Amino acid sequence: MFSFSLNKTDGAARSGVISTPRGEIRTPAFMPVGTAGTVKAMLPDHVRATGADIVLGNTYHLMLRPTAERIDALGGLHKFMNWPRPILTDSGGFQVMSLSKLRKLTEDGVSFQSHIDGSKHMLTPERSIEIQCLLGSDIQMQLDECPAIPIAHDDARISMLLSARWAARSKRAFEEKSKPGQAIFGIVQGANYQDLRRESLDKLMEIEFPGYSVGGLAVGEGREEMFRVLEFTTPYMDKEKPRSLMGVGKPADIVGAVARGIDMFDCVAPTRSGRHGQAWTKTGPINIKNARFADDRDPLDPQSACPASRDYSKAYLHHLFRAGEYLGPMLLTWHNLQYYQDLMAGLRDAISSGSLGDVIADFKHATGEEVV
Amino acid sequence: MFSFSLNKTDGAARSGVISTPRGEIRTPAFMPVGTAGTVKAMLPDHVRATGADIVLGNTYHLMLRPTAERIDALGGLHKFMNWPRPILTDSGGFQVMSLSKLRKLTEDGVSFQSHIDGSKHMLTPERSIEIQCLLGSDIQMQLDECPAIPIAHDDARISMLLSARWAARSKRAFEEKSKPGQAIFGIVQGANYQDLRRESLDKLMEIEFPGYSVGGLAVGEGREEMFRVLEFTTPYMDKEKPRSLMGVGKPADIVGAVARGIDMFDCVAPTRSGRHGQAWTKTGPINIKNARFADDRDPLDPQSACPASRDYSKAYLHHLFRAGEYLGPMLLTWHNLQYYQDLMAGLRDAISSGSLGDVIADFKHATGEEVV
Repeated sequence: MFSFSLNKTDGAARSGVISTPRGEIRTPAFMPVGTAGTVKAMLPDHVRATGADIVLGNTYHLMLRPTAERIDALGGLHKFMNWPRPILTDSGGFQVMSLSKLRKLTEDGVSFQSHIDGSKHMLTPERSIEIQCLLGSDIQMQLDECPAIPIAHDDARISMLLSARWAARSKRAFEEKSKPGQAIFGIVQGANYQDLRRESLDKLMEIEFPGYSVGGLAVGEGREEMFRVLEFTTPYMDKEKPRSLMGVGKPADIVGAVARGIDMFDCVAPTRSGRHGQAWTKTGPINIKNARFADDRDPLDPQSACPASRDYSKAYLHHLFRAGEYLGPMLLTWHNLQYYQDLMAGLRDAISSGSLGDVIADFKHATGEEVV
Repeated sequence: MFSFSLNKTDGAARSGVISTPRGEIRTPAFMPVGTAGTVKAMLPDHVRATGADIVLGNTYHLMLRPTAERIDALGGLHKFMNWPRPILTDSGGFQVMSLSKLRKLTEDGVSFQSHIDGSKHMLTPERSIEIQCLLGSDIQMQLDECPAIPIAHDDARISMLLSARWAARSKRAFEEKSKPGQAIFGIVQGANYQDLRRESLDKLMEIEFPGYSVGGLAVGEGREEMFRVLEFTTPYMDKEKPRSLMGVGKPADIVGAVARGIDMFDCVAPTRSGRHGQAWTKTGPINIKNARFADDRDPLDPQSACPASRDYSKAYLHHLFRAGEYLGPMLLTWHNLQYYQDLMAGLRDAISSGSLGDVIADFKHATGEEVV
C-alpha cells in the first residue's frame, strides 16, 4: 500500500512515484511546510493547484497546540486541515532542540518546556511515533538527534549511534501503532564524515525502512559542503527506496541535491520569504518592497497558470507590502510555491527525458547559481 | 449608461438593479470595503464568489498610498486590484476627520497631515472628485462634512449648508472630469433633525444627482435613533434614484435600514470582525477564539456554498486564531462576507416576493435583534 517506483535516472538523479493510499507523490517532490496544520497564508485548494502532492506537518507544533489527541478526536490531521492528500510529519526532535526551553537529552528521549506556555513534555521515539500516528501521518520520521556542523568526529559518532538506537525503537513503535499504508523513514546522521554516514546507513538498512531521510544537513555547513556529503552518502543508499533531505532548501540547493540523488524536499523558504516580501523568479529572488517596483506594471510571471504570478502587477504587490495588507503575503506565498512546484516539474521532466544537464545549465545561466 | 431600475417594493423596502458599464448591482446591495485597494485578507475572485457586485475603495487611504496619480498611471483602480466590476469610492472627507493629524476645515476644503508620513495635503470638493476620477471610480461621492450626533441644531445647519455648497462644487467638478457611465452621489446631512434633512435633500435634488447617500449616521447615535432619522428622511428621497447609507452596518442595522428604503450599504464589520475572530451565524455572532469551540467538529454553516463556511470545523478555526495563523482571518473574513451577501440575497428575494415581514420576523426570532 506504500510503495516507490523508480521510473528514470539521469546520472545520480532519479524520477519516480511514491504511491500511498491517499494519493501519489511524483518525485523529485517539494513538500510545502504546514507547520501548525496550515501552509501559512494559503488555502489548501491553492496548495494543491500549484502542483503539490504532499505537505509536511510539524509534530512539535501540533503536539503542543492543539495537541495530537485533539486532532485525533477531530478525525485526524488530514480532515482537520482540509488536506485529503499525503502528509509527511517530522519527529519533532529538530524543533524541540531549536524552539523549546530547558530541554534535556537522555538515552530515553528529550524532556523540554513548551515555548508557548512553558508546560513540560517528554518526547521519546515511542511518543513521537504515537503522536504521528494520532495525527494520521502517511510518512512518519524516526526521532533523531541532529547536531550542528562542525562537530568533532567522536561526538558525531556518539550522536549518530544514539539516533540509530532511536531508529530501532521508532520502528518497533511504528509497527505496533501504525495503520496499513503508512510508512516510516529512518534518518541518516553522521555529520560530514563519510565513515559515519555509512555506519549510520548500515544500521538503518539493517533495521529496514520503507524510505530514508538524510538528516543533519542544512545546519550551517554551507551549500558546497552539503553537496559533498550527499555525494558520498546517496550512492550508498537503497536505490529502491525514496530518499528525502530534511529542511532543504533554496532552489539552488534543491537542484544540486536532485542531481545527487535526492527525491523529496521540504523547506519553509518559499512560504516564509513570501510573507516577508521576497519573490522567486526565473532569474533569482527579488524583494518586492524595493522602491524600484512601485511603478512596475508587469506581473511576476505573465506566462504562469498561477493567478498570483499572473494577475497582479509588481506595483500592486509592492503596495500591498508597503500597506501591510494580508493579501501581500497571501499572493507572494502562492507565487513562491508555484515557482517551487514548477521547478520540481521541470526537474522531473528533465530526468525523464535525460536532459537534466541542460536544465541545470539553464538554471545556472539564469540565476548565476552553481549547483554542480 | 448609469441607471437604476426599481423592480419591486414591499412597504418602504425596494429591490432593483443599478446598471453600470462595468456590470449590474443588485439592490439592496452590500459593498465589501476595500480600504487600501484590497478587501482585507480576501482574493478578489472570492469576493465575487460570495455574491458581491461592487466593492468600496477609500479615497483617503489611496490618495496617500500609493497615490491616485500612481494608480491612474497603472491603469486605474480596477486593474490595480484585479476587480473588473463596479467600484464605489467615498470622498475621503470622513477619514480625513477620523484618521489624519492637524486637520483644518475651511470653506475651501480640509487641510491635513497624513497619518502615514505626516505629509501635508488639501482635500477640496474638486480635488476629491479629481482623485476619484483618477482612480476610475464608477460611483463617486461628493465631499461632505460629517458631524457627530448629538449636535446643536444651529451647528448642524451650518455644517449641512457647507456640505450642500460642497455638493454643488463636487457636481461641477464631476461634470468636467468624469467619464461616461460614471456617477456621483449627493450626500444628505442634517444630523437627527427632520427639517435639516429635508432642507439638505431639497438643495441636493435641485443640484440633481444620479443617486443619493444618507450621511451623518452610524456616528454614535444608536440604532433606534438611526432608524428614526431614516423614517423621516427616505420618504422624501427621489424614488427613481438609488439610495446608499454610508458606513452601515451590522446585520440588524442593514435589515432595519432596508425596511426603511435603503438600497446600498458598506461597512468594515464583516471584514474587521472576521480578522478578530468574530463570525456571524444565522443565530448571531460568535467569537471563535472562545474555548468552547476548541473541540467543535461542526463547520460554521454545513449548508453553505462557501468553502470557508462549509469545509473547516470550528475547532480548526479556533486553532488557527489561537496559533495566530493567516488562514484564520482569511477564512473568517470570507465566511462573514458570504453571510452578508446571503443576507442581502434573502432580503432581495423577500422584497421581490412580498414577504419581507416574514424574513424580518425570522431574523428577529433567530438573532433576538429588533429591527422594526
